[in-house]
Amino acid sequence: MAKMIRKNYILAPGPTPVPTDLLLEGAKETIHHRTPQFKKIMQEATELTKYIFQTKNELFMLTSSGSGAMEMAVSNLLSTGEKVIVLSAGKFGERWEAICKAFKVDAVVIKREYGQTFTPEMVEKALDENPEATTVFTQLSETSTGTVMDIENIAKVVKGKGKLLVVDAISGLLAEPLKTDEWGIDVVVAGSQKGFMLPPGLAYVCFSEEALKKVEKSDITKFYFDVKAYQKNPAPWTPAVNLIYQQKMAGSMLKEEGIENVWERHRILAEAMRSAIKALNLELFSDKPGNPLTAVKVPAGIDGTKLVSFLRDEYGIVIAGGQGTMKGNIIRVAHLGYMSKFDTIIAISGLEMALKHFGYGLEYGSGVKAAEEVFERENV
Amino acid sequence: MAKMIRKNYILAPGPTPVPTDLLLEGAKETIHHRTPQFKKIMQEATELTKYIFQTKNELFMLTSSGSGAMEMAVSNLLSTGEKVIVLSAGKFGERWEAICKAFKVDAVVIKREYGQTFTPEMVEKALDENPEATTVFTQLSETSTGTVMDIENIAKVVKGKGKLLVVDAISGLLAEPLKTDEWGIDVVVAGSQKGFMLPPGLAYVCFSEEALKKVEKSDITKFYFDVKAYQKNPAPWTPAVNLIYQQKMAGSMLKEEGIENVWERHRILAEAMRSAIKALNLELFSDKPGNPLTAVKVPAGIDGTKLVSFLRDEYGIVIAGGQGTMKGNIIRVAHLGYMSKFDTIIAISGLEMALKHFGYGLEYGSGVKAAEEVFERENV
Repeated sequence: MAKMIRKNYILAPGPTPVPTDLLLEGAKETIHHRTPQFKKIMQEATELTKYIFQTKNELFMLTSSGSGAMEMAVSNLLSTGEKVIVLSAGKFGERWEAICKAFKVDAVVIKREYGQTFTPEMVEKALDENPEATTVFTQLSETSTGTVMDIENIAKVVKGKGKLLVVDAISGLLAEPLKTDEWGIDVVVAGSQKGFMLPPGLAYVCFSEEALKKVEKSDITKFYFDVKAYQKNPAPWTPAVNLIYQQKMAGSMLKEEGIENVWERHRILAEAMRSAIKALNLELFSDKPGNPLTAVKVPAGIDGTKLVSFLRDEYGIVIAGGQGTMKGNIIRVAHLGYMSKFDTIIAISGLEMALKHFGYGLEYGSGVKAAEEVFERENV
Repeated sequence: MAKMIRKNYILAPGPTPVPTDLLLEGAKETIHHRTPQFKKIMQEATELTKYIFQTKNELFMLTSSGSGAMEMAVSNLLSTGEKVIVLSAGKFGERWEAICKAFKVDAVVIKREYGQTFTPEMVEKALDENPEATTVFTQLSETSTGTVMDIENIAKVVKGKGKLLVVDAISGLLAEPLKTDEWGIDVVVAGSQKGFMLPPGLAYVCFSEEALKKVEKSDITKFYFDVKAYQKNPAPWTPAVNLIYQQKMAGSMLKEEGIENVWERHRILAEAMRSAIKALNLELFSDKPGNPLTAVKVPAGIDGTKLVSFLRDEYGIVIAGGQGTMKGNIIRVAHLGYMSKFDTIIAISGLEMALKHFGYGLEYGSGVKAAEEVFERENV
């Protein structure tokens, strides 16, 4: 192939593109974390992050990936041998399962096929069948399949039965509506490299009052992720100082934009993508596709892994392939964070050219056309 | 309109997008310009820039815009009252005219309509009709109309008659083939904010041996742009130190890429754009469109100025409108510098949506389709 300039288009569900202002904020002088200056920044960043979570509950900012925050939820909320329900229809449902197993929690795993969602009725049935289960673990968005869960109504069921609800909102936060306090979610987990438009390195967990009461009783051994340490001091260990600057700025930008507007722009990009996928006669993978990302079945005869590498190596477009058993069978395109409508156009145009390259029959421009129609209808 | 993220897409013929590596190079510590360290950087940057100009002639790097380099050409090469020929079919032909006038040079202006080119025959005729004229001034690419000039054959005519040729290659360099020494061009002028992928602030001029002999005889008063000062010291006044770092790095990147490859990628992007314009039933403005940019006639009933503002304010896409008498009648989309094929896709998709918004009848995706077909044919 002729030598063309390849810019780096991150269109995978995290890390996501970081705006220049936020990158430069992270390039500022590192100050000491035990100073009044830094404490103030940390506090302000925490308050802004609570707004994003739509919560007044206690919220901790961790120097870790989202998986660390998931561990914090399990290891603080539960005790050894405690029975919980894990909804699992993807890689991240399985991660709850793995963490529960590691901490010897008795997880009843309600399995569905990859790509399927859980209805509130399914959750109700699971709770009825396991009356000793104290807690339900699920995802807002199952990143591995692009499936969104109806957290609002799942919360009604769980809270109606007096149980606790823990939501992994790592890829979902900011891209899908989530109202922690209004919906009564006990624990919500998220990470910096998704809707926050930040580099990886920070994670967040909030705990309801009821959840914090359970934390008191937990018999699981922990240190780095011990909630009590964070309650005494929001930065019990050295935090990623420069990322906290960025967190504060991102929180401030997102608050100014307004959380409803943030949800809305993700919805519009995802609708444009879904419309393009249909126009290209491709199939959505999920039975309830969400707005953080779109998972698409790779057409028969094409190797999805090669498709992903081709887009990355030849076009500079980084999308995600399938994880685990989905490897080679699906591709995943994100609409997450700092994305303009032209990022979605790039994804679609890149996909048109790459699919054609691998022999898939399509009309050039037909996907882009469908997306442009959505943008016109949405008046953006 | 709903609030969407608007990234900044610079698709105007300068300034052009700057790659992050070059931006960061410019963010390095400013060193003193009278140090051996800086002199070495300056010298290396100059050598690399000579490669881009395809010349072994003396080349000076100026802290100025391209217009400063144009002034240096006129004020050093000529004397008061000297007769020259200026080929003028656009804003930058007119700039040669204005500079000649300012320095009391007797410019015979050969005018053509905006958007028209000059054939070697026209230049021959002009020289025959003005035998006292010593020098011909022209553009490689007339930025205001997107027209390319056949410099190779114009040079044959001019040099064949023993005259000097001065070429403004400000928007043309790197986007169109230009072989200064092989074609025998006496003076070539360029600027940093175009094909070099740099911020504005630097300009370059090279002078052939024959041109330098004429510099000796020039009676025009000058100071900042006095070639003799630059011959004694390549940095006679304080240069833009950080831009020189960037110039060196850009020169190095472009040399590694290879000048023929650089010309080639500009050609492919411009062909994709021209093909899209045709598919959208729009008309190219120039009778000889070049590869740095594509000028397009605004369809009847649409205000080109509003079209440009709409693209900028609503989509974040910065293209150029018409200058001077062309204001409102044409738009200009660049393919200049750090541009991937998806920058061209963005320009086309943005144009499709904006033109439809203003009531132009088109089928969404048809321009993108035409561009994708070019990319497929070119195997990029």
